Amino acid sequence: MTGLDHTHDAALRSWVPGADGHPDFPLQNLPFGVFSPRDGARRAGIAIGDQILDLPALLAAGLLSGEAAIAAEAAGGADLNPLLALGAGPRRALRARLSDLLRAGSPDRDRVAPLLHAAASCTLHLPARIGDYTDFYVGIHHAENIGKQFRPDNPLLPNYKHVPIGYHGRASSIRPSGIPVRRPCGQSKAPDAAAPSFGPSSRLDLELELGVWIGAGNDLGTPIPIGRAQEHIAGYCLLNDWSARDIQAWEYQPLGPFLAKNFASTISPWIVTPEALAPFRVPQAPRPAGDPAPLPYLIDEADQAGGAFDLRLDVLLVTPSLREAGLPPHRISASNARHMYWTVAQMVAHHTSGGCNLQPGDLLGTGTISGPDRDACGSLVEATLGGREPIRLASGEERRFLEDGDEIVLRARGIREGFATVGFGECRAAILGAIA
Amino acid sequence: MTGLDHTHDAALRSWVPGADGHPDFPLQNLPFGVFSPRDGARRAGIAIGDQILDLPALLAAGLLSGEAAIAAEAAGGADLNPLLALGAGPRRALRARLSDLLRAGSPDRDRVAPLLHAAASCTLHLPARIGDYTDFYVGIHHAENIGKQFRPDNPLLPNYKHVPIGYHGRASSIRPSGIPVRRPCGQSKAPDAAAPSFGPSSRLDLELELGVWIGAGNDLGTPIPIGRAQEHIAGYCLLNDWSARDIQAWEYQPLGPFLAKNFASTISPWIVTPEALAPFRVPQAPRPAGDPAPLPYLIDEADQAGGAFDLRLDVLLVTPSLREAGLPPHRISASNARHMYWTVAQMVAHHTSGGCNLQPGDLLGTGTISGPDRDACGSLVEATLGGREPIRLASGEERRFLEDGDEIVLRARGIREGFATVGFGECRAAILGAIA
Repeated sequence: MTGLDHTHDAALRSWVPGADGHPDFPLQNLPFGVFSPRDGARRAGIAIGDQILDLPALLAAGLLSGEAAIAAEAAGGADLNPLLALGAGPRRALRARLSDLLRAGSPDRDRVAPLLHAAASCTLHLPARIGDYTDFYVGIHHAENIGKQFRPDNPLLPNYKHVPIGYHGRASSIRPSGIPVRRPCGQSKAPDAAAPSFGPSSRLDLELELGVWIGAGNDLGTPIPIGRAQEHIAGYCLLNDWSARDIQAWEYQPLGPFLAKNFASTISPWIVTPEALAPFRVPQAPRPAGDPAPLPYLIDEADQAGGAFDLRLDVLLVTPSLREAGLPPHRISASNARHMYWTVAQMVAHHTSGGCNLQPGDLLGTGTISGPDRDACGSLVEATLGGREPIRLASGEERRFLEDGDEIVLRARGIREGFATVGFGECRAAILGAIA
Repeated sequence: MTGLDHTHDAALRSWVPGADGHPDFPLQNLPFGVFSPRDGARRAGIAIGDQILDLPALLAAGLLSGEAAIAAEAAGGADLNPLLALGAGPRRALRARLSDLLRAGSPDRDRVAPLLHAAASCTLHLPARIGDYTDFYVGIHHAENIGKQFRPDNPLLPNYKHVPIGYHGRASSIRPSGIPVRRPCGQSKAPDAAAPSFGPSSRLDLELELGVWIGAGNDLGTPIPIGRAQEHIAGYCLLNDWSARDIQAWEYQPLGPFLAKNFASTISPWIVTPEALAPFRVPQAPRPAGDPAPLPYLIDEADQAGGAFDLRLDVLLVTPSLREAGLPPHRISASNARHMYWTVAQMVAHHTSGGCNLQPGDLLGTGTISGPDRDACGSLVEATLGGREPIRLASGEERRFLEDGDEIVLRARGIREGFATVGFGECRAAILGAIA
């Protein structure tokens, strides 16, 4: 599963200015996305440093052949679904060729350089048309933190350690980083109120998640065994599953969250490939003593050996007062992708175990990934204990939940001795006031 | 809202053999769908009697003009999403023109007749690409029946009469009538079992619902006020929301049903228009004394006056033993669409009230529509009191839940004195055994 090759070599240098040592997009990453250059049409691109390489132009220039060309041809439309559908072979071939074209000393440098666009002058779009979006709940510290607020003595429900809990979310309201989020109105009812009322949410929250892009997928009625799950994962992104806690508390029984979460979700626009993340694979954390063994359909030796990721995850808050005072963003959380009770392969195997079909471009969310400590909470409702203990900012302000004008930035980075750091880029959005 | 015109005239006769008095598709219905004739490509069609009129061929023959032609042009692709997106004007113009072309005495009969295909020789497809699928829970007798099995003294949760409860479902596994459904495997845990196990569902159930096709839809962040909701509804279908009750009971806390329902949903393939159903509009049933008034965003005078439907709904069961004995299908339920606590307009207004965007071709389900009596239950878990009181069939068999080889047929019909009966066609599927 590790599959390390020459494309991961930390000694590799790129001729693209700023790519070497770039905290997100060095030569060892090469994520896929969809962008528009200024006044240009939507097309596929590869992030390298602070540049974007125009993939259709690279193909048109005759710089790709074989499987790499097949991958680039599939990426010739307005979204990457056909590329995702191809599976790993062509994707890996394209990565290897891109690594060669962009490395220092490449004989093709002069032909490739004109095909780069400054990322700052481009617009990033959703990389794929998302058919269905499913959100899981595999961050066990999040599940415990939330559960404690309802059931202090028994925070986890009896099914949690047997079932990778998930539910269907809203695909139509997923937007790429940079698009502001409108504070939703909705019904809520304070515990002491006689009746519910309708108005702007006053407990607007973020959720720190990873997103998983589905590749080839399966036919209806044909489950994906856990040992084949990796073949169906095309890449990863960051996901902010914005949540209106007051709406959620009132509506969620008995069928789960609905309007509390479907007003917007924000993702980072680059598809970071399984190949780029290979150096950051780690064994699944051993289950605590006393925890039940998973049922056989959720067990795979290779998945236990390397199905988890060591990725640092950060949540940053920018407020108008911090910005005005010239102060840096406030770090709400420093977490890690290791804090998942179930692996992504277990999510895929479970999702399809009853026959449900996953399709290219479907998106899975992990659920909020909190660490065990207060400074590693992936949501404000955890970090502030339900709003009871506000966060104090260097500007003198407090935050219990998000206010209009606040901006949240999520980051994910693989950092490992002997390897280049690989990042996801930003997942950023600001809160707009509700429409009265 | 009633909008009755000459197309509803019960005295209208069609020159298409078998159309007059057809229990589903008389001249007064004219639903839209997507079909393939034997060895032909997928295309839009109109059901009339036991025939399907080829809509692109009608356009090519020069028999449509103005708004009717615009509608038919939008229906020129492999799915009807562009037609749905157009809204009511072109749809109504096309309906009026089709009514003229197909009525007895039409001067164009000889040009139209060759464009008809025998429905029995055609394959019906999903009429639209479904972006997002949302399932509501507005059948109050169903909510009470299910609630009683968990909480005998307090079946309805406190939010039920304030919030049109809904949740997101799986779009990828929705199939048209006629496609068999594979019994799902999954995790379940009997109340007295020490641990869960994985295997074929032994409590496989149906759910009788109506589906609602979204038309133009709204932009993210821009709710649809209840007074405009009708403009965004393009039509209706039947929906069988197959449910594995054993999987559901174990998985659904705290985020709602997931694998228990995402293995398959079956819909009737014809989009029955709001125009065709206009004669069957009825006032919303008055809320029982003591029920709270809805919040203002859910109140509209026209909706209260005519936002409900009087449609007879039937659930029929065909088993191998009934078939072998030459016995008719067993009627599990005779219900009515009036048994909805919230109207479709209230569902649309609520769904978008926080800003969530609906898109052309999105599908809403009403939730199971049960009547107040045992012979009007829209699911077996209700009709058999959770499996405790089996249904007895004329063949001597019993049923608590569905067995392999069983087939479920849903029907919906508007029947009103002075009007032609209008039906939805069948929503039918058989159960295949689980893959071991």
